[in-house]
Amino acid sequence: MSLTEIARFISQHDCFLVTSHARPDGDALGSELGLALGLHSAGKKVDVVNHDPHPSTYSELPGIERILISDRVPHLEYDAAFVLECGDMGRPELRGLEKLRVINIDHHITNQNFGEFNWNDTSAAAAGEMIYRLLRQAGIPVDARIATNLYVALFTDTGSFQYRGTTAQTLETAADLVRAGADPSFAARIIYNSNPYEKIRLLGMVLTTLRRDPSGRIAWIRLTQEMLRESGANKADTEGLVNYPLSIQEVQVVAFIREGGEGSFRVSLRSKGDVDVAAVAHRFGGGGHVNASGFELNGLYDEVLETVLQQLRPLVI
Amino acid sequence: MSLTEIARFISQHDCFLVTSHARPDGDALGSELGLALGLHSAGKKVDVVNHDPHPSTYSELPGIERILISDRVPHLEYDAAFVLECGDMGRPELRGLEKLRVINIDHHITNQNFGEFNWNDTSAAAAGEMIYRLLRQAGIPVDARIATNLYVALFTDTGSFQYRGTTAQTLETAADLVRAGADPSFAARIIYNSNPYEKIRLLGMVLTTLRRDPSGRIAWIRLTQEMLRESGANKADTEGLVNYPLSIQEVQVVAFIREGGEGSFRVSLRSKGDVDVAAVAHRFGGGGHVNASGFELNGLYDEVLETVLQQLRPLVI
Repeated sequence: MSLTEIARFISQHDCFLVTSHARPDGDALGSELGLALGLHSAGKKVDVVNHDPHPSTYSELPGIERILISDRVPHLEYDAAFVLECGDMGRPELRGLEKLRVINIDHHITNQNFGEFNWNDTSAAAAGEMIYRLLRQAGIPVDARIATNLYVALFTDTGSFQYRGTTAQTLETAADLVRAGADPSFAARIIYNSNPYEKIRLLGMVLTTLRRDPSGRIAWIRLTQEMLRESGANKADTEGLVNYPLSIQEVQVVAFIREGGEGSFRVSLRSKGDVDVAAVAHRFGGGGHVNASGFELNGLYDEVLETVLQQLRPLVI
Repeated sequence: MSLTEIARFISQHDCFLVTSHARPDGDALGSELGLALGLHSAGKKVDVVNHDPHPSTYSELPGIERILISDRVPHLEYDAAFVLECGDMGRPELRGLEKLRVINIDHHITNQNFGEFNWNDTSAAAAGEMIYRLLRQAGIPVDARIATNLYVALFTDTGSFQYRGTTAQTLETAADLVRAGADPSFAARIIYNSNPYEKIRLLGMVLTTLRRDPSGRIAWIRLTQEMLRESGANKADTEGLVNYPLSIQEVQVVAFIREGGEGSFRVSLRSKGDVDVAAVAHRFGGGGHVNASGFELNGLYDEVLETVLQQLRPLVI
């Protein structure tokens, strides 16, 4: 059982590296910091190293100032490197990592068991849930700073306890973390009150293009280069816009048509339930999943829209 | 201790009315149905009576078809009426209610102890949390249909576990309910995928009016009568629009200026943390709380805006 083995390894060693994937998200950062603060409080030496800086959303996470940004491991004297939330050795984008003993902790089914120790629990909703169990197993007390980080990890990776992966155990871990000092409203505030002004401006512009077909089941929105210029928003700010039309009760499928340059368009499709948009994307050389896919098309906007609608209409009959 | 008294009363009686406040929300409906389904499964006769129909959001709640809509109690033969989530006897807007023995269950500090039994637990995040404890105390098993209703009650009254009132006990109750068969993604789907098309259109129009002051801490949006006409949205669809500017990281206070008719404007203020907008509203004859207030102003739009900004600037220095 890897959990007990890893806990024993911790008790018998002193110097650790902690890392996660490049372009870290809330689960990566919260898990890393929760583990690192725990190891530190147990008297271990710990370096947290990431390839990329954290999004400003996470600036208030306790201990965030500990994270070093680098494209290589600082040295090779670590007893082991904890690699969290990564499917393979390449995800952290840290040179020299392969020369260390690796403890691989992940909850994704695609994990490639690349470590010397591999603990992969696909029933966990977030790596943060696993780190909580590991600290308990290792006898390391979970204080308010650790609990706050692990709560943010759970909160972000479950979409505030709304995604399908959310289990009774997830909520129980969340309850334990609140008891240990995590504040649920802190997580909500840093995640949901961190929008840039430009993003909300862009949201308004894009939503004024919202239209639907006569059935009310297909909706679409459009993004032009001019909207990006006028709002001052960047490409990252376009993430999530497609969810607004999808929140309309009758809508089953949404097309988000983004103008590139010179007559090229990026089409993102989102759907609910069994409506399969992956097949549509494949037809145009794109890819994705049942409920989320994307592809490129060239032409005039009206032609592109009509081509897309022709493909979507049969899906919602 | 009222909880045990109420549980004993249930075991000794057979016929109950269950109600909640007029214009019921998720906590009212989920609590009512959770309790009613529990009483029914324990072999009791139960009527659920509300003054108003439920919002379409809640159409999929198990047992929702049981609810009778009326402005009076159906008869006076009930052993008792459960009144949930109500500060006083007037909130359900049911004539004849005062002639029944009343069991008052609420979690608001303003409750006026109007019942024969009064169980008011201000530490509960939702009435649904209290109903769960009551069913357990009464020895009534919580099945998947009951659990689903109580989960929706908790989920809606805590803003999906994000408001300040969310405690370890709230999350533990949520975990118990998931174990009993509630599906976290069901609650998320019915609550967040129930927007009318017209509301999302209106959101776009209103957000294109978003502006901010040079400090970036004050933002404002505007609603005109023409936007309502053009989008087809109604007054209820304007609820929550003010939260979008408030989600901007630097913004500390938001003014939402709604055009009435003939030069009248309704001004809603929202703020973060210690920024007190109640005092501003009081100055103009309005009311509210520290972080949410409102008042009326007459004049031209530009004058009204400037008057409001003059009041807000000192708050964010």
